[in-house]
Amino acid sequence: MSDAAFAERLAAIVGARHVIGPDGDLAPYVTDWRERYHGHAVAAVKPGSTKEVSAVVRLAAEHGVTVVPQGGNTGLCGGAAPMQPGRNLVVRLDRMRAIRAVSPLANTVTVEAGCVLAEIQAAAEAADRYFPLSLGAEGSCQIGGNIGTNAGGTAVLRYGPVRELVLGLEAVLPDGRVFNGLRALRKDNTGYDLKQLFIGSEGTLGIVTAAVLKIFSKPRVSATALVMLDGVQQALDVMALLRGHVGDRLGSLEIMSRGQIEAIRATVPDTAVPFALDAPWYLIIELTDTLAGTDLTTPLEGALGEALERGLITDALLASSEAQAKAIWRVRHSVSEGNKRSGMVVSHDSAVPLDRQAAFAENVERRIVEAVPHARVVMHGHIGDGNIHVIALIDRARVTDPAEAERVAGAINGIVDDETRLQGGAISAEHGIGLTNRGRLARVTDPLELDLMRAIKGVLDPRGGMNPGKIFSDSDA
Amino acid sequence: MSDAAFAERLAAIVGARHVIGPDGDLAPYVTDWRERYHGHAVAAVKPGSTKEVSAVVRLAAEHGVTVVPQGGNTGLCGGAAPMQPGRNLVVRLDRMRAIRAVSPLANTVTVEAGCVLAEIQAAAEAADRYFPLSLGAEGSCQIGGNIGTNAGGTAVLRYGPVRELVLGLEAVLPDGRVFNGLRALRKDNTGYDLKQLFIGSEGTLGIVTAAVLKIFSKPRVSATALVMLDGVQQALDVMALLRGHVGDRLGSLEIMSRGQIEAIRATVPDTAVPFALDAPWYLIIELTDTLAGTDLTTPLEGALGEALERGLITDALLASSEAQAKAIWRVRHSVSEGNKRSGMVVSHDSAVPLDRQAAFAENVERRIVEAVPHARVVMHGHIGDGNIHVIALIDRARVTDPAEAERVAGAINGIVDDETRLQGGAISAEHGIGLTNRGRLARVTDPLELDLMRAIKGVLDPRGGMNPGKIFSDSDA
Repeated sequence: MSDAAFAERLAAIVGARHVIGPDGDLAPYVTDWRERYHGHAVAAVKPGSTKEVSAVVRLAAEHGVTVVPQGGNTGLCGGAAPMQPGRNLVVRLDRMRAIRAVSPLANTVTVEAGCVLAEIQAAAEAADRYFPLSLGAEGSCQIGGNIGTNAGGTAVLRYGPVRELVLGLEAVLPDGRVFNGLRALRKDNTGYDLKQLFIGSEGTLGIVTAAVLKIFSKPRVSATALVMLDGVQQALDVMALLRGHVGDRLGSLEIMSRGQIEAIRATVPDTAVPFALDAPWYLIIELTDTLAGTDLTTPLEGALGEALERGLITDALLASSEAQAKAIWRVRHSVSEGNKRSGMVVSHDSAVPLDRQAAFAENVERRIVEAVPHARVVMHGHIGDGNIHVIALIDRARVTDPAEAERVAGAINGIVDDETRLQGGAISAEHGIGLTNRGRLARVTDPLELDLMRAIKGVLDPRGGMNPGKIFSDSDA
Repeated sequence: MSDAAFAERLAAIVGARHVIGPDGDLAPYVTDWRERYHGHAVAAVKPGSTKEVSAVVRLAAEHGVTVVPQGGNTGLCGGAAPMQPGRNLVVRLDRMRAIRAVSPLANTVTVEAGCVLAEIQAAAEAADRYFPLSLGAEGSCQIGGNIGTNAGGTAVLRYGPVRELVLGLEAVLPDGRVFNGLRALRKDNTGYDLKQLFIGSEGTLGIVTAAVLKIFSKPRVSATALVMLDGVQQALDVMALLRGHVGDRLGSLEIMSRGQIEAIRATVPDTAVPFALDAPWYLIIELTDTLAGTDLTTPLEGALGEALERGLITDALLASSEAQAKAIWRVRHSVSEGNKRSGMVVSHDSAVPLDRQAAFAENVERRIVEAVPHARVVMHGHIGDGNIHVIALIDRARVTDPAEAERVAGAINGIVDDETRLQGGAISAEHGIGLTNRGRLARVTDPLELDLMRAIKGVLDPRGGMNPGKIFSDSDA
């Protein structure tokens, strides 16, 4: 069957205007957000219901066409890029964006997978509730993609990653059958928890079409401080102290190295740095509470006072206004911009156990500087999640040759991967594997785990037609 | 090979004194806690390390012996009973009870699977932290069994079931290989989340040998109230109101019907009922806070005042002392005793979506009384989890014939299962499937889900030697 005939068959299922066929403008669907992958597809299709998704997947299976599920196409690892050599079909759920129900009583929201994350946040807000998932792409990423990649973001410390926010889901399997696990249950011990298979498996086991998500009481008051410290270990000690002082009011804990802030100050002139840069490390602390009128300042001052006394911190700045808190957070949010403007960026997304972060940060920096003396190592990240992003900034003048740039990046990646493994960590905390990290995954993962993953893939997708080439390296897929 | 020779091979792995062979006292290992199942085994074995567990499982596999993992043997559904017709080997991890590490900094505890739950609670407490899993059997159940059954208990409302408390685990697969997922990571997006397979699969996919668990800031203050109301819907409205008023300070929400409390008052004389029994429903509300000195009474009074004004509750009793709070909780804890003394008990463990509980309770009661007019229907449960236990109390004088008792219980179960399904619920919220519920599971579950479960079982345990006959009905296994 020709590509045009296949597109016609698709049109018969979803309607002609919801198929972008071989003669249409497929560019937005075959290139990833970072523009690292430029793939190809016979069509992109936008089904309007789970039944249509099922029919589309069945059709593709019949004709040996590879299915590539794509949410908002904002992923950082190429997981939604159609890169297989044969015929690829991009399946987009843009039309399935109904928020089917919001229950402030059950604290649940039922959504179709094409919902944009910000719309779900707004729906919860409208019901005086809070949906905590929050990340840079929230204005365009879709919840189906968030579930498929087990997205993290800035509220993991308190609410966990997406996996902990999903109560139930519906998914179309690689053979077109529909798994109906769209249950709104807080407890369910009736056999294996099948929905877990579809969370974080990057669309390789099926297409998530709808979900029931947890929503929460709204945080109604917050307090923010910036503290200066000598090292990561001190930041960890402050975290332990805060846990004793303020219990589970700890909302965010974000660390930055001085070098990280210097990179911002030097390159992002519209971001003011409202504090002196005379300490090696900076920690933003945000407390939140769901009860309006709660005094968070007194316990925060108490904790910081004790931290000063015990020599854990060298100075502290307690935000006295919303504006001051925003100015502090502005620095944190300028991190990507600052790094991009500072040179070639080799960045990482490792997670290590919380109490290994000091050793991890120290060893990684030392080893990178030994291997690449001209690299500037800066760090920032979610210290409450064990997720410090290590970034090597390379002066572009020193790596004008692409092969040399590749070699330098490879050497740095090798060091970070090795140190991550030594500290009992994982090379991807929140971004996933996709295409970008599949080679690294194959190198660092226990062969038994890869065997089990492949076996499960084989059971759900024996034909190998559902987002192949992702997670597993080519030779392993 | 004779049973005695097999026991000798086991002794060569773990030492003779850690094998209870065919001539030993196997009774404690072949009978379940409820004494409903009386099985048989060639031996019970107590390996002292993961390596020994692995060697034992390999040996059993070689000789076609069925492996039955058993924790503290406190399960309610026969999941750890050795009931297969062939040769069964009970594997107990009693000797693997080290608490390997407690990190108040990372908020984690690393334990071997044979640890008794109460020991883990105590270890967290000793580090000024809190391990929230709490249930009746906590003095003898083991964490390996809690993980294998995804245990629930009294803290699910705030902390979730066991699945949400496990960061990483180690398990011996049915072929003896060791899955080493003992990671202490808050974030990990490196491929499929394999550890989920072993949580709640009731030992059918492997033996959990160790785990890294989350611990939390300790609740340091609490406030308790008992409110009287006209129906389940009113209790749900109170819950919604509390979520607005006290945010996530809601620690427990336990509902009881008047009939439930009357059954206690009539049969458990040492439990005083410190309030009038003139309302149809009673709700215990407990708020907790991790910050010492927090005033919980004022917001609780505020919420209850509003509930009274809006006519959601007819009366409220705010505990003015620890002793009064205990007296209220004493009633709740006497529920099982009171029911057992009130007649033949037909009890259920359904979960339904939170906002369906009123319809569920009403319909179930009406239908049971229609079908079995002499049944007394009483209810209690975790309304914040959607888990109301429906109990039919049958006068033993009316069902002296065992066949008649069986028929009555079957009719009632059928009604509860049907209504659970109609309300989008699950027939087991927290107790699991085991042997007791496998026929019911087969009846109410989508065949596609059973297919997927069987396919996963087939991949991990192609020989079918790991706790066979559990979860799946015989004809399905």
